[in-house]
Amino acid sequence: MKCEVVAVGTELLLGQIVDTNSSWIGEQLALVGIDSHYQTKVGDNLDRMVEVLRHAVKRSDAVIVCGGLGPTQDDITREAIAEVMGVELVRDQSIVERIEAMFGGRGRVMPENNLLQADVPVGAVINPAMPGTAPGLICPLSGEDEGKIIYAVPGVPWEMEQMVTAGILPDLQTRAGITSVIRSRTLRTWGKSESGIAEELDDEIRRLDAAGTATIAFLASGWEGLKVRITAKAPSEAEVVAILDEEEQRVREIIGDVVFGLDDDTMESVVLELLRERGLTLALAESLTGGLISSRLTAHPGCSDVFRGAVVPYHRDLKQSVLGAPDVPAVSEEMVEAMAEGVCRLLDADVGIAVSGVAGPDPHEGLDPGALWIGIHLHGRSEAVNLTLPFDRERIRQFTCIMSLNLLRTRILET
Amino acid sequence: MKCEVVAVGTELLLGQIVDTNSSWIGEQLALVGIDSHYQTKVGDNLDRMVEVLRHAVKRSDAVIVCGGLGPTQDDITREAIAEVMGVELVRDQSIVERIEAMFGGRGRVMPENNLLQADVPVGAVINPAMPGTAPGLICPLSGEDEGKIIYAVPGVPWEMEQMVTAGILPDLQTRAGITSVIRSRTLRTWGKSESGIAEELDDEIRRLDAAGTATIAFLASGWEGLKVRITAKAPSEAEVVAILDEEEQRVREIIGDVVFGLDDDTMESVVLELLRERGLTLALAESLTGGLISSRLTAHPGCSDVFRGAVVPYHRDLKQSVLGAPDVPAVSEEMVEAMAEGVCRLLDADVGIAVSGVAGPDPHEGLDPGALWIGIHLHGRSEAVNLTLPFDRERIRQFTCIMSLNLLRTRILET
Repeated sequence: MKCEVVAVGTELLLGQIVDTNSSWIGEQLALVGIDSHYQTKVGDNLDRMVEVLRHAVKRSDAVIVCGGLGPTQDDITREAIAEVMGVELVRDQSIVERIEAMFGGRGRVMPENNLLQADVPVGAVINPAMPGTAPGLICPLSGEDEGKIIYAVPGVPWEMEQMVTAGILPDLQTRAGITSVIRSRTLRTWGKSESGIAEELDDEIRRLDAAGTATIAFLASGWEGLKVRITAKAPSEAEVVAILDEEEQRVREIIGDVVFGLDDDTMESVVLELLRERGLTLALAESLTGGLISSRLTAHPGCSDVFRGAVVPYHRDLKQSVLGAPDVPAVSEEMVEAMAEGVCRLLDADVGIAVSGVAGPDPHEGLDPGALWIGIHLHGRSEAVNLTLPFDRERIRQFTCIMSLNLLRTRILET
Repeated sequence: MKCEVVAVGTELLLGQIVDTNSSWIGEQLALVGIDSHYQTKVGDNLDRMVEVLRHAVKRSDAVIVCGGLGPTQDDITREAIAEVMGVELVRDQSIVERIEAMFGGRGRVMPENNLLQADVPVGAVINPAMPGTAPGLICPLSGEDEGKIIYAVPGVPWEMEQMVTAGILPDLQTRAGITSVIRSRTLRTWGKSESGIAEELDDEIRRLDAAGTATIAFLASGWEGLKVRITAKAPSEAEVVAILDEEEQRVREIIGDVVFGLDDDTMESVVLELLRERGLTLALAESLTGGLISSRLTAHPGCSDVFRGAVVPYHRDLKQSVLGAPDVPAVSEEMVEAMAEGVCRLLDADVGIAVSGVAGPDPHEGLDPGALWIGIHLHGRSEAVNLTLPFDRERIRQFTCIMSLNLLRTRILET
């Protein structure tokens, strides 16, 4: 079973919007075991859309077409599919009622145009998920394309995602005769290169290749680290979870020291949870990162029980006047140790992180861009780590952010 | 002249990487007046790449293929193009020497694999720009495709961008017989909806349609505001700049109050520059935004001459103990005014911004998510603005960040 993706919208071709929908759909297809060999972007032009859909139907078994289902004159995906199916559009009264009910429920008057969204190709079925006013379409083909299918979903990401998850992936699996359950689990790692981790897991990957129970894939995620994804297939949910549990355990035994979380965990969510467990509160003194660590922590709802706050002593003199640091070089061991301790005192926190360094692009006080110190104040003691990052300003700041949180994480775990 | 884009890489289909290259190329093609009707993603598979390239060559005059030019076994774009051209690959000695020189210059030993990058289809020309070790290829077709062309560029964005700009766009324009110069200028706006701005500019857009001297397009950019892009065409650089200057002036006369910058300006770069001009220094007290404003300002090199620093008094009691605010509700007019003034005093700054609000998802102290106050301390006086944003946590924080900076910008301009 091969399924390809067609994204519709002139704004995609003009680069006004980056097509993230196709990427998301591609990932989901791979996760449930459906091959996907092509993704195409085409503008809001009927002839070209029909050409692209016909070509896609010829070389694949199924096509997911994304976008062009809205209520404006530009939205002609319905027409294009009807032409490929060789049928007319008919107004579906059940959709008319659902759209009217949605507008009524929000106390708004419905523009007449919205009824265009109730026009569907004869023979099409409505996707069971309909979170917005645009219905998703499931369109079986006939004649020489008998057995093939086109799915249409809106371009609005959250509507598209619900429809793909609820109405398309299960249907594709049934059509493909996939009766097994496929699930993945991602181990988030930080601090080791892809080649290093791949080498350590080499024997285990060979063992899995032979056993056929699960696969391991690596997903580089820049400064967020490397994701190690375990994927398994089994006849039931319980069995697939058992395989993932066992395989996670094996992988952790080999590379456990660099694993900081699972699936949706982030470095900051893991650090917040760890502080919560230990009953510790946190304060930050961010010079180099300028509030980046603080802004990432506070993006998490409920962080206020452990996160006290931060000081960004960007100007040199504030490190002394506000945080009480001694008159030492701004980027030095003594400075970040004093900053970490000082911010704990000022903001009444148990644990402190301090960073100071040269973000670049120019050298500063005789130090090259990327030279930095991270200070940690924990259990009444301060320590500092020195690093030199051969990066540009943005990456220096982002890496420092992750590294600081990871350093705190490992220090707390050691105590 | 129609040019389409093909992005190569199995990781693109699997959603491990979002294809931003095609979007960027699409934008550049539109800016220089080349039509682009299709963009395709295909995996690292020779048969499928050849099929996609043949199909693209059939329906367009030129194809830019992006990715698959590296030194590994997966990189087979060279082979695919050679097959479409009906020619062999030959090792180009001049590229061998350039690659060897690049490695030598960095004092590194060159892996033998890198020489694969010197294999080019017979008849191909090397792109004049070669910032990395992968050469870009300009491959003219013959036979029934005589006059058509395939350009190959690496998938590394900065290498790709240099090659497209220096070696592909001018060549495409020459082939298309475009002798005029096309340039764009983007007015960055904030604070008014797309439909509102479109309505105000309606007459001007009609006038331009009739005159044919320039066009205006709107590019929504979420919480960063709406971009109004003016594009003009003229026989020479001087003439096109004159048209843009005149049109910018006209647009500013109509919507000038919401224009905060041009082209690469951001809200924070504009505020930093304005502070610099007026000789003012800035401090922030960020509760709701938790360091976001500070991290955006400090992303700019050279901000330290006007940016003093920030305090994130995330826990309620710190607003009083650190910033000296009175015992009033955390989200209130009195609180943000006191915070803005307090942080100026603490960090020794001329100007202060303070934000306090409910980021959600849950209500806090009887206020719904999105309820917030922004305080500005300027020229010894404090004032506050009250807002309620019907958004989720992330958008509440991001919008507040932009709005705070814009509020300061307008207040400084008023004085």
